[in-house]
Amino acid sequence: MVLGKAITLVESNLPEDQQQVSILLEKIIQHTGSSIRIGITGVPGVGKSTFIETFGKLITSLGKKIAVLTVDPSSQLTKGSILGDKTRMEELSKNPIAFIRPTASGTTLGGVANSTREAILLCEAAGYEVIIVETVGVGQSEVAVKNMVDFFLLLMLAGAGDELQGLKKGIMEMADAVVITKADGDNIKSATEAQAEYQHALHLLPSSPFGWSREVLTCSALQNKGIENIWELITRFQKQSISSGYFTENRVQQNVTWLHDYVDYLLRMDMQRFPSLQKEMADFENQVAHQKISAQSAAHHLLASYHAAIKKS
Amino acid sequence: MVLGKAITLVESNLPEDQQQVSILLEKIIQHTGSSIRIGITGVPGVGKSTFIETFGKLITSLGKKIAVLTVDPSSQLTKGSILGDKTRMEELSKNPIAFIRPTASGTTLGGVANSTREAILLCEAAGYEVIIVETVGVGQSEVAVKNMVDFFLLLMLAGAGDELQGLKKGIMEMADAVVITKADGDNIKSATEAQAEYQHALHLLPSSPFGWSREVLTCSALQNKGIENIWELITRFQKQSISSGYFTENRVQQNVTWLHDYVDYLLRMDMQRFPSLQKEMADFENQVAHQKISAQSAAHHLLASYHAAIKKS
Repeated sequence: MVLGKAITLVESNLPEDQQQVSILLEKIIQHTGSSIRIGITGVPGVGKSTFIETFGKLITSLGKKIAVLTVDPSSQLTKGSILGDKTRMEELSKNPIAFIRPTASGTTLGGVANSTREAILLCEAAGYEVIIVETVGVGQSEVAVKNMVDFFLLLMLAGAGDELQGLKKGIMEMADAVVITKADGDNIKSATEAQAEYQHALHLLPSSPFGWSREVLTCSALQNKGIENIWELITRFQKQSISSGYFTENRVQQNVTWLHDYVDYLLRMDMQRFPSLQKEMADFENQVAHQKISAQSAAHHLLASYHAAIKKS
Repeated sequence: MVLGKAITLVESNLPEDQQQVSILLEKIIQHTGSSIRIGITGVPGVGKSTFIETFGKLITSLGKKIAVLTVDPSSQLTKGSILGDKTRMEELSKNPIAFIRPTASGTTLGGVANSTREAILLCEAAGYEVIIVETVGVGQSEVAVKNMVDFFLLLMLAGAGDELQGLKKGIMEMADAVVITKADGDNIKSATEAQAEYQHALHLLPSSPFGWSREVLTCSALQNKGIENIWELITRFQKQSISSGYFTENRVQQNVTWLHDYVDYLLRMDMQRFPSLQKEMADFENQVAHQKISAQSAAHHLLASYHAAIKKS
């Protein structure tokens, strides 16, 4: 599959691959941007895969192409786990208009975030209209995902204990909507209670941009209940944010931030390209660690060596 | 005062001042490191200034020199607010063996963090044995402060409502101890209840390095109660972490991280030094913002221009 191969390319750290990525992105950039980008997060066990599987089936039943990208900076992906991930969303992965792909690569979060952003563009150019970026509940990756999507959805469990919920409150501020999952059987009552409770909590948070009022919904992915409401909410958000100008403004801001992040990343990589600098960095790390030299002086020396290496190259 | 002038120098972004800072740090680096660095955080209203004032009086009464540095990346400091800050800790600021200094400069968090770290070194070289780094309760600055101290103290209020407390839970994981402030008069009962509650919550968190068990204490800075217990706790922490090797290991790690952060910061500054690159950056920002070019390609172009500018310089 061409899209899969292209994403493998963006995940590569090899300079020759990065060169190719650059050419590829240049060709497709004009054909990107016409999707709704949805970030989804929630603690392990909240039922992200089941939710995405059911949600994806709704989207594809509407004739829309959906791509699911997963960000997990903590895990080094192997072929095994990619397979594992596909099995997780078995039905959806068999659907010809659905595309499922983990994008972690075990490198730095900066690297992961870059390749995920590029994967979004590739999916858009390939005609995917709904892009899901799923992240595993750790703070740093959630901020990274929030900064690359139009709409950020937080999945929560009813009655999962105060500790767990408390830890999620920092993330609640980032959410455009909250969905209480597994609202079926014996859970319906507690899900409805949690809905009211979180709705109250959300009202206490600063209001979101362009006057969007955050909503809390419940759903059962297993019984396929409440999923349409969520899609309706997302399309409503999209319409309102487009007409208010926020949608475009947010993407412009995200693009500019991405450029700055990417420049930082590239500079760091570029410095490591010179073996002499790698050695010097290791020496200075050791000296700075044991207070033989200040971090500042060491950094200035490294910058001077970097300049010298560039001049010689 | 020489120390004050030196800190003004490290806060400066001017290249000639940075050059001087580099020379200065080189001279003093061997004389740094022999203090206990204490980070203090808490939401506005928790009573940080009153606490630090009372705590500082205890430290100085023991004949130890104390320095208080404040990190506030959100505010552009003026002479007015420096004055304001001194008035906040009026008695302490008049003590000849106490030094109080806000270190924010309204620049990026990276810049603020760098100058605060340098200010710590300057204070140590000037013989200050207890360094307090105070931060105002926003997530990013707290992570920055956590990464430059030996001991991180979270101040909390009893009965300040679930919302407020919930938002602090991400920060509780970073804390080596929690202190419930304003435990006086009618507040004593609720403070003791909160103490038990937070002690329970802390037990649920992953255990801290080298087997330190986080404690929750109460105090009244107004009535000067419980302050000695806090100092006793901190000295106990210091002893245990030194004998376990964690104290040194943590500082080594912090120093190496600082070097990497500083190199990133310096590269970013260095790029901005060339007017032609500034203009090119602005052009590319505009093109990337409106999807005329990919962030990746733009960044590669900027890197090539940076190389060319260095070769010509």
